Amino acid sequence: MDMHDLTRSLHVKNDSKIVMLVADGLGGLPLEPGGLTELETANTPNLDALARRGVSGGSIPVTLGISPGSGPGHLGLFGYDPLKYVIGRGALEATGIGIELAEGDVAVRCNFCTIDGEGNITDRRAGRIPTDQSAPLAERLRQVQIPEIEIVVEPVKEHRFVVVFRGVGLEGEVADTDPQATGVPPLEPVPRDPDSSRTAEVAHEFIQQARQLLAGEARANCLTMRGFSGKPALPSYKEVYGLRAAAVAVYPMYKGLARLVGMDIVGGAKTLDEQMDVLAANWNDYDFFFLHYKYTDSTGEDGNFDAKVARIEDFDAAIPRVLELNPTVTIVTGDHSTPAKMSAHSWHPVPTLLVADSCRTDGCEAFGERDAVHGGLGQFKAKHLMTLALAHAGRLGKYGA
Amino acid sequence: MDMHDLTRSLHVKNDSKIVMLVADGLGGLPLEPGGLTELETANTPNLDALARRGVSGGSIPVTLGISPGSGPGHLGLFGYDPLKYVIGRGALEATGIGIELAEGDVAVRCNFCTIDGEGNITDRRAGRIPTDQSAPLAERLRQVQIPEIEIVVEPVKEHRFVVVFRGVGLEGEVADTDPQATGVPPLEPVPRDPDSSRTAEVAHEFIQQARQLLAGEARANCLTMRGFSGKPALPSYKEVYGLRAAAVAVYPMYKGLARLVGMDIVGGAKTLDEQMDVLAANWNDYDFFFLHYKYTDSTGEDGNFDAKVARIEDFDAAIPRVLELNPTVTIVTGDHSTPAKMSAHSWHPVPTLLVADSCRTDGCEAFGERDAVHGGLGQFKAKHLMTLALAHAGRLGKYGA
Repeated sequence: MDMHDLTRSLHVKNDSKIVMLVADGLGGLPLEPGGLTELETANTPNLDALARRGVSGGSIPVTLGISPGSGPGHLGLFGYDPLKYVIGRGALEATGIGIELAEGDVAVRCNFCTIDGEGNITDRRAGRIPTDQSAPLAERLRQVQIPEIEIVVEPVKEHRFVVVFRGVGLEGEVADTDPQATGVPPLEPVPRDPDSSRTAEVAHEFIQQARQLLAGEARANCLTMRGFSGKPALPSYKEVYGLRAAAVAVYPMYKGLARLVGMDIVGGAKTLDEQMDVLAANWNDYDFFFLHYKYTDSTGEDGNFDAKVARIEDFDAAIPRVLELNPTVTIVTGDHSTPAKMSAHSWHPVPTLLVADSCRTDGCEAFGERDAVHGGLGQFKAKHLMTLALAHAGRLGKYGA
Repeated sequence: MDMHDLTRSLHVKNDSKIVMLVADGLGGLPLEPGGLTELETANTPNLDALARRGVSGGSIPVTLGISPGSGPGHLGLFGYDPLKYVIGRGALEATGIGIELAEGDVAVRCNFCTIDGEGNITDRRAGRIPTDQSAPLAERLRQVQIPEIEIVVEPVKEHRFVVVFRGVGLEGEVADTDPQATGVPPLEPVPRDPDSSRTAEVAHEFIQQARQLLAGEARANCLTMRGFSGKPALPSYKEVYGLRAAAVAVYPMYKGLARLVGMDIVGGAKTLDEQMDVLAANWNDYDFFFLHYKYTDSTGEDGNFDAKVARIEDFDAAIPRVLELNPTVTIVTGDHSTPAKMSAHSWHPVPTLLVADSCRTDGCEAFGERDAVHGGLGQFKAKHLMTLALAHAGRLGKYGA
């Protein structure tokens, strides 16, 4: 029996409210052994007060030693085993730029590349053509026409763009056309199962027309396709938890991930303060709120320890606005660690706290990596956090008599 | 390979004795954040001394956030994954009132209900008819006769009673007849697979005769049936652990659960002191003893913090009588938490300690929830406790060369 079979059969309704605050990449590392992490360095009186009222622990995003991307990191927090539910590369890229995938769509990551007179690739990234030159070329490809197929083309950045094919009978099992080498031509899109042969034909036709449209270009005169994938089949929050869920996020990737599990995207907030306005404005209409805060991750990715500390302090300052709403369960966590020392996502457990009247307090005096090690939640896989949230919200019945 | 495949292949015999003391619903919560739990409040010098000698931790009954009933709670402690082994509702109800199920029996939970002149249900619980009126009616139903089928009927409480069908060719996959609504007639017992069609016929015949026997009653003039289920197929303690196991319990439910895994039920103790007498009297005849103490759960269910504290102190006072017997391994745990603050079973980890000469002591100075967080057992799933017990008893060989 998997976790969702359990929650599906046990969930009950009540008037509780659950807030999950996700500070992206929250976990960190000391710059020197024995030093303080970004979170431990930051002055966080509000989070520390929550740690005294609640229960702390370390959330393991996927499993020990695995550094997740944003997709698996958030799926784990949402209670979807990131090793069971996989979002295809094309679908994740489309989601990340705000394309709302429908059932039956196939999304593809595309790269502009350069080919020579014989059709062999000379540069797999078209000289990393700048976005201001590549975006109009991607838009030009919207001229491609294939009968009975709707085609969405969106620029991403530099040589990267996304194509979505929409029509009847499309499946995502098509092999990449990028040969991962120069001096050879792009590969043909080959179906990996019979149900995907129509997609392969459509991709072939798209490439032919695109090459004509790009023929005169010096660098971006061809393209390769990778990560063909459909909309991932994720059961919804409503179905597995019985929750009306809302996402309060600023960036398309996180809105997209929330949409994939059936959350409504509410508000058009640009700042954390505006996110708090949106949270308050929608308070009566939902049971569960996912609020995403980006800057703890982006400063970590930049390797800027001090900036990450400052962004954590901004986040802490917003906490009272959440507590004013008097949530039944408040969770503070991250989708993974992004230590400034590493300038990258990491596998380290993410300091996490859960506050509810039914918490068994654990003596933690502050919110930080070192305290979390001694917290009552211990170290746990992120995928269990939603079940704990439902339990503390009084939304799960007893298992067995 | 599941845990039982491992223990089955590795267990060896010796003269060790394992005692598992289960204080039902042991785990608790502070009434206010930062306060003490019931166990932390209680004066428990004997348990505290054990905590200094042994190793402590938090037992997770099923998985994070899941509150178990007594069935899954005890299966976990006995080392049977409660998500893999499920005891049907009828079988658990029968077990709980002391009916010893045999292979091939089908047990059913029944409710008296009230129907009107047209056969539609007007009250699904027959006005919650008091037990002194309902019990004789249940006993009257023992007059039902069906060829080649033995029928057991036992009153439970108010509108509830249990029926067991015993005969050849009976399986438990029959749908409930309770329509979960009034103004409609009871449903027919419908087999959910072909092997259960005989059971459905027998149930139909039982209902016909029962309605005639109840025809003159004002309230309890009909019945509904739910939770058809056979004896669960649980491998025995003898087979999976090589243990001769005895249960020293007062209440039928816990005797029944122990019987399902092949323990012998010893003694007729009514008090904890009598349970200790029974333990001593049977010491030489068994390798493993399960001793069940009920009152930590019942006081928790009553929401009576102080009474639970007092019952924990009574339990502590009995510990020296166990230690006199010089067990090789002593375990103190609970099947789940029942915080007085919640007046219900909960999902919180259960403070657990294991004492044996082979313990790696962990610096815990007392037995309580907060200490257990820092204990050497960490937080672990209850289903692993039996393997640890066998290991500390020297009853498991090496895995692999």
